[in-house]
Amino acid sequence: MTLDPTKHPDWKIAQDAESRMKTIEALASDLGLEGPELLPYGHYMGKVEQQAVLRRLENRPNGKYIDVTAITPTPLGEGKSTTTIGLVQGLARRGQRSSAAIRQPSGGPTMGMKGSAAGGGLSQCIPLTPYSLNFTGDLHAVGAAHNLGMTALTARMQHERNYDDATLEKFSGMARLNIDPTRVNTGWVMDFCVQALRNIIIGIEGDGRRNDGFMMRSHFDITVASEVMCILSIARDLADLRERMGRMVLAHDRNGKPVTTSDLGVAGAMTAWLVEAVKPNLIQTIEGQPVFVHTGPFANIALGQSSVIADRVALKLSDYHVTESGFASEMGYEKFWNLKCHYSGLTPDAAVVVATVRALKNHGGAPQPKPGQPLPEAYTREDVGLVEAGCANLLHHLGVVRRSGVPAVVCINKFHSAMGYSSKQG
Amino acid sequence: MTLDPTKHPDWKIAQDAESRMKTIEALASDLGLEGPELLPYGHYMGKVEQQAVLRRLENRPNGKYIDVTAITPTPLGEGKSTTTIGLVQGLARRGQRSSAAIRQPSGGPTMGMKGSAAGGGLSQCIPLTPYSLNFTGDLHAVGAAHNLGMTALTARMQHERNYDDATLEKFSGMARLNIDPTRVNTGWVMDFCVQALRNIIIGIEGDGRRNDGFMMRSHFDITVASEVMCILSIARDLADLRERMGRMVLAHDRNGKPVTTSDLGVAGAMTAWLVEAVKPNLIQTIEGQPVFVHTGPFANIALGQSSVIADRVALKLSDYHVTESGFASEMGYEKFWNLKCHYSGLTPDAAVVVATVRALKNHGGAPQPKPGQPLPEAYTREDVGLVEAGCANLLHHLGVVRRSGVPAVVCINKFHSAMGYSSKQG
Amino acid sequence: MTLDPTKHPDWKIAQDAESRMKTIEALASDLGLEGPELLPYGHYMGKVEQQAVLRRLENRPNGKYIDVTAITPTPLGEGKSTTTIGLVQGLARRGQRSSAAIRQPSGGPTMGMKGSAAGGGLSQCIPLTPYSLNFTGDLHAVGAAHNLGMTALTARMQHERNYDDATLEKFSGMARLNIDPTRVNTGWVMDFCVQALRNIIIGIEGDGRRNDGFMMRSHFDITVASEVMCILSIARDLADLRERMGRMVLAHDRNGKPVTTSDLGVAGAMTAWLVEAVKPNLIQTIEGQPVFVHTGPFANIALGQSSVIADRVALKLSDYHVTESGFASEMGYEKFWNLKCHYSGLTPDAAVVVATVRALKNHGGAPQPKPGQPLPEAYTREDVGLVEAGCANLLHHLGVVRRSGVPAVVCINKFHSAMGYSSKQG
Amino acid sequence: MTLDPTKHPDWKIAQDAESRMKTIEALASDLGLEGPELLPYGHYMGKVEQQAVLRRLENRPNGKYIDVTAITPTPLGEGKSTTTIGLVQGLARRGQRSSAAIRQPSGGPTMGMKGSAAGGGLSQCIPLTPYSLNFTGDLHAVGAAHNLGMTALTARMQHERNYDDATLEKFSGMARLNIDPTRVNTGWVMDFCVQALRNIIIGIEGDGRRNDGFMMRSHFDITVASEVMCILSIARDLADLRERMGRMVLAHDRNGKPVTTSDLGVAGAMTAWLVEAVKPNLIQTIEGQPVFVHTGPFANIALGQSSVIADRVALKLSDYHVTESGFASEMGYEKFWNLKCHYSGLTPDAAVVVATVRALKNHGGAPQPKPGQPLPEAYTREDVGLVEAGCANLLHHLGVVRRSGVPAVVCINKFHSAMGYSSKQG
Repeated sequence: MTLDPTKHPDWKIAQDAESRMKTIEALASDLGLEGPELLPYGHYMGKVEQQAVLRRLENRPNGKYIDVTAITPTPLGEGKSTTTIGLVQGLARRGQRSSAAIRQPSGGPTMGMKGSAAGGGLSQCIPLTPYSLNFTGDLHAVGAAHNLGMTALTARMQHERNYDDATLEKFSGMARLNIDPTRVNTGWVMDFCVQALRNIIIGIEGDGRRNDGFMMRSHFDITVASEVMCILSIARDLADLRERMGRMVLAHDRNGKPVTTSDLGVAGAMTAWLVEAVKPNLIQTIEGQPVFVHTGPFANIALGQSSVIADRVALKLSDYHVTESGFASEMGYEKFWNLKCHYSGLTPDAAVVVATVRALKNHGGAPQPKPGQPLPEAYTREDVGLVEAGCANLLHHLGVVRRSGVPAVVCINKFHSAMGYSSKQG
Repeated sequence: MTLDPTKHPDWKIAQDAESRMKTIEALASDLGLEGPELLPYGHYMGKVEQQAVLRRLENRPNGKYIDVTAITPTPLGEGKSTTTIGLVQGLARRGQRSSAAIRQPSGGPTMGMKGSAAGGGLSQCIPLTPYSLNFTGDLHAVGAAHNLGMTALTARMQHERNYDDATLEKFSGMARLNIDPTRVNTGWVMDFCVQALRNIIIGIEGDGRRNDGFMMRSHFDITVASEVMCILSIARDLADLRERMGRMVLAHDRNGKPVTTSDLGVAGAMTAWLVEAVKPNLIQTIEGQPVFVHTGPFANIALGQSSVIADRVALKLSDYHVTESGFASEMGYEKFWNLKCHYSGLTPDAAVVVATVRALKNHGGAPQPKPGQPLPEAYTREDVGLVEAGCANLLHHLGVVRRSGVPAVVCINKFHSAMGYSSKQG
Repeated sequence: MTLDPTKHPDWKIAQDAESRMKTIEALASDLGLEGPELLPYGHYMGKVEQQAVLRRLENRPNGKYIDVTAITPTPLGEGKSTTTIGLVQGLARRGQRSSAAIRQPSGGPTMGMKGSAAGGGLSQCIPLTPYSLNFTGDLHAVGAAHNLGMTALTARMQHERNYDDATLEKFSGMARLNIDPTRVNTGWVMDFCVQALRNIIIGIEGDGRRNDGFMMRSHFDITVASEVMCILSIARDLADLRERMGRMVLAHDRNGKPVTTSDLGVAGAMTAWLVEAVKPNLIQTIEGQPVFVHTGPFANIALGQSSVIADRVALKLSDYHVTESGFASEMGYEKFWNLKCHYSGLTPDAAVVVATVRALKNHGGAPQPKPGQPLPEAYTREDVGLVEAGCANLLHHLGVVRRSGVPAVVCINKFHSAMGYSSKQG
Repeated sequence: MTLDPTKHPDWKIAQDAESRMKTIEALASDLGLEGPELLPYGHYMGKVEQQAVLRRLENRPNGKYIDVTAITPTPLGEGKSTTTIGLVQGLARRGQRSSAAIRQPSGGPTMGMKGSAAGGGLSQCIPLTPYSLNFTGDLHAVGAAHNLGMTALTARMQHERNYDDATLEKFSGMARLNIDPTRVNTGWVMDFCVQALRNIIIGIEGDGRRNDGFMMRSHFDITVASEVMCILSIARDLADLRERMGRMVLAHDRNGKPVTTSDLGVAGAMTAWLVEAVKPNLIQTIEGQPVFVHTGPFANIALGQSSVIADRVALKLSDYHVTESGFASEMGYEKFWNLKCHYSGLTPDAAVVVATVRALKNHGGAPQPKPGQPLPEAYTREDVGLVEAGCANLLHHLGVVRRSGVPAVVCINKFHSAMGYSSKQG
């Protein structure tokens, strides 16, 4: 019924599957959500009122908790998202209520050459296009919250420069914070790869005016790398999010003391922008299983984990819940185990280490394959020696998992297509 | 049943009404939408598939089309949004199927001291909080589209500096555009009032590296002032939007020739971010009438009109459709008549000129009232002379409307509360 | 004996005259200087120990004091310096001990298209080349003094940002000055027309370092426009210079109080660089009369007067001393009379208003002549009407002089050459 | 007759000696200069017309040529300038016609905490104050020449941005140079330690104007580190200087090709500012021997050698000429031998390696002494072991000299004063 993945590109398979996909109401119902626990966003996407679900199912035991990590990938990506979704599809075929948790793609790589990390082949999530762009607005909300904090910070610096102590306290109700302009390490965010905003000077005064900010060096990061995103990933609920948001450090004062969003009086307003973003999103695999989507990618420059909230609610609703950690295990699994599990109190029942023959060959000595270029010959012939040599890498990553005491399962991702190019975002 | 507006603040009245509000499905059904023509966003907000509606009702005649404008307001605001919503509520009580079209508030004034322009007293739209923040994500999408264009522009300038003609053409497929860095008049957007980003220098090269953009002066505007927002206001449909987006000028080349998003090959990608934003949003008055919300405010620095699309679909669904033009008539009505109606081909049946005794007294010579300060004495005593003198202002604005040949109706907005402070955004 | 000015350019006439010029010792002796009162700078230039001369000749009455000003010039210049030197040459032919005081040219116009303001034709000062470049180093010294003040200011701002009150006071012995970075109106100086340094940002911190100044907008002016130059023009002697130097305002603190070089503890060091510059320079006309050269040009953007010191010492040594005021009388003479004479206590015996038929024709309605272009036809034919009409301008400038009560003499400068292009600097 | 150096500070010894110093004419006469070969600058300083001297003495054999270098100094300085001057004084007492060549101090350390490198104790050069400040203007002239080059470069970049090929060529007579703004490695110069100008952005366009330069990162170096200074050090005469000046690279074009001052057409004008600076300066030791002063300090960041021209003329006039190389031998002597001697063709007859017991103790393990702090105890007691251990450093520096084949002489500088703090500039 689905298109043949050896003959059609990913987007065509997704488009075809979308013509038959469940409405969000049917998906939610199959998942076991009741009445207003689903917040529809159009006909095929929705958010879950996780607090209501968790309250209702407080006494239901959690399902099995499976993390997906990987060996060191080649630049082509080895299919962690694909495996995550494939696992859920497979478990469903075996009659298990199963769900996945993945992360929302960043506009940076989506608008670049990389694509939007929705899995591939017969293991994708849909609807593909809205998921890849604005989706339900979570990344936008994270960016707004972050930039609101920076707006408050820079406005404060301007006011502290312009006004004496008495005026300052009268209008703001706060004593001078004495922020050190050379120790403002936080920048602004925008969810594109904007090289032009990497290194900027802000607050340049116009002629004779003093209302154009406080001049200093600054920069823009990609939104998904915001500390707000990190907080969203590990918060247990809105109250926890609000509390952590207030401890976020934006700068240091002249004595080296941290200046937080609470010091600036803006933590509540920042949280207000996240009231909807804190609710995990729900879409489906091309075979109709529930896929939770929450927080953003990049385990190298950010936390890069799907959220604690998504996992907590999914574990109540599924027999098996498969969550994904970005990058290979030395980044993704380490952050999963030492940070995310530390905050959630959850322990996985198993960890899947994704490998491909291609990556094993690469680690065994074959030349690095490159996106957009033909695979080197070493990858197209049979060469058991290269694969064996590459297993050293696999063993190392298995060791990373083993140190946490969690059982590890190796999964070899075999590509249907000769292309074998996943749209990874890390 | 609703709270007494002389005793409760606006937000409390809204909160109380929200406890009884219709679901978005009920609201859409009352409005006459069918099945998938409604895209729900949670339980009380939604978007309208306007193309489907317009196709279905192609042959139904339009309802009456009423524009709301005003005399020159005081800094307190004289209640244009309130009158717009009040009119719809009144027409409904007289048994008419009526609807309003207003604009989504900007995060700048919302996060500042002004509030979010949802009307006031017994004439407000709800749900108030989500409407005031992320809403259905339209402003975020406009910002993303705009900033994607700027990302393409600045990346191009970097590449044109770094590479020779042959390399440039090989990788981009485009001949050198020769963009003049002193004639890049377009900046970036963020939907807050960020004084610190008003005047910036971008693209500062790091030591020895050439991949940090092209150094030039730049600036951030508030998102609602983006030309993308303007295009969204006047587009007839997605195809029209796509076509206009490609004509958007971001810079000039060294010979003074405009450089458009089409020249940069980014117009399609920018439009992709707006596929949902092009659909008008639907919420309700506190008495349950439909309120279309589309595009953004500020008729002084932007177009500041609710959208052509919202009006077109509403006129098919209502006997009376009341739309709002920002600021007083010399800005709002002029732009409504000469630009918006020019592009839509629609002609209003009447224009309402909102006035208050307070503003008339002000124009008659009473001192300017100020937000957060007690009203001067001239406003609390009866003084017909001041009002009469101030009518000169009213007459002028009536003249603006009359010149367009549209019948004008004066509406005196009487405040329930002594405060009389509307949360205007212009 | 001198070259025919109708056949040779100015520089050739100068070069020829230089082959016969007096040594600086002979020139000084003819002027009446004794022994060490002359400080030779090479064989043909020197400085005068004015304090010694003034002490020795304390009781000798001053010679006649003549100021040269002008009507509004055309862009070609009408010959104020030429007239000044010509007057001295003429008075000498009539047996009077006469001297001139002119200003040292700025490297800006000298290196640009304008030339170095040494008079023209048969009325020039020599040696031309060294006078036009480093000369005796006065402009360099003024620049060094000025930039040393700015160095102290910016170092102080850096230290005040980096250190707490106790550390600051321990190392500098000064309490916090609290300089407001938005109210640093003084820039740096360089004696060229450097458009690239007109608007700069300084003190950009390197990564992680805090020793690269305090980031702020700044700019470079041309050295001759420095306030240090202005102080040098009006100081009576070194002690007076030192005292005025300490009152020079470089910035304002956050309460709007001026911050002076004395507040920064740098006034003495700045003055040290000017110990030689305070002594007026001596060269000669091409006919061997003494020409004092002191301070710099530009009565529009600076004081633009030769110095009080040069005039004081010359008046003791000459029967007639002719000094020059930059630009036309509404700038040059006004500053001469209201500022320079105010500080010196001297009163001129006469003021010469330089005019040319060319400028009178221009003011009478002839098109503006332009450097490097042929003179319009109106200037090459006889046209008394144009000249008469232009006399309105002359009358106005005579009125400026008359209001000071000083007798005015009109001098018509007739060009030998068809070119008639003086190398003016204003 | 001179003051007791154990009882008086250096400046007092200098001041006392100045009351008895020879006039510049007497000094020049003793040195064997004739008539106009001396250019006096005031009564005690002068420049030498080296071309005339060299022509006149073409056939006279050179005197002995001695270079002074040193072991690795402590931060207090070990007395290279002092030894240089002391050697000349000592040779004179033995009846030899001897002269020194040292470098003019930079205003940076002079205005900082370091002093002006005029030797110390009984071996100083005088007059001290003018030598330490403007002197005869050479450093100013070098700065002017350098900055004129940068003015031409930045003006060219502005013009190339603003004008098309035809206009550009019409006005400048040069084809487009296509200067790459990210490869302009040369900055501007100012002879102070200005941390605030270390990292700047220049050419910031004013609103709507295109005549404020080309915006790019830039910086100011200290004048003595200018490549112009380096060229002045190694030039044989004015013609050689002119030729080398034209090969000075200021930037690179977009293809990586160097852009020289000749390409910019400014090399001649830059040289014009150096016509006097190319002539070496002449002052005296406090015992009346001739001291040539030419070019500037800092063998770490610059060439840091007295000039080829000074040495060439001095060798014709002296039996023994002692010249100085900045820093220890691994910088100063290496640059002297491999660069300066390479260009001059001269070979020294001996090299003096200056050492102190203090420095030897330091290299032997005693704690580093610091300016402004009491000497650690290890320096005030007798400790032959420390000195012996420190001789390893001395041996290494002797090896540096030996590799050049030049005989080395060790000179132990013994301080008269307990302070022993020389005003070194490197």
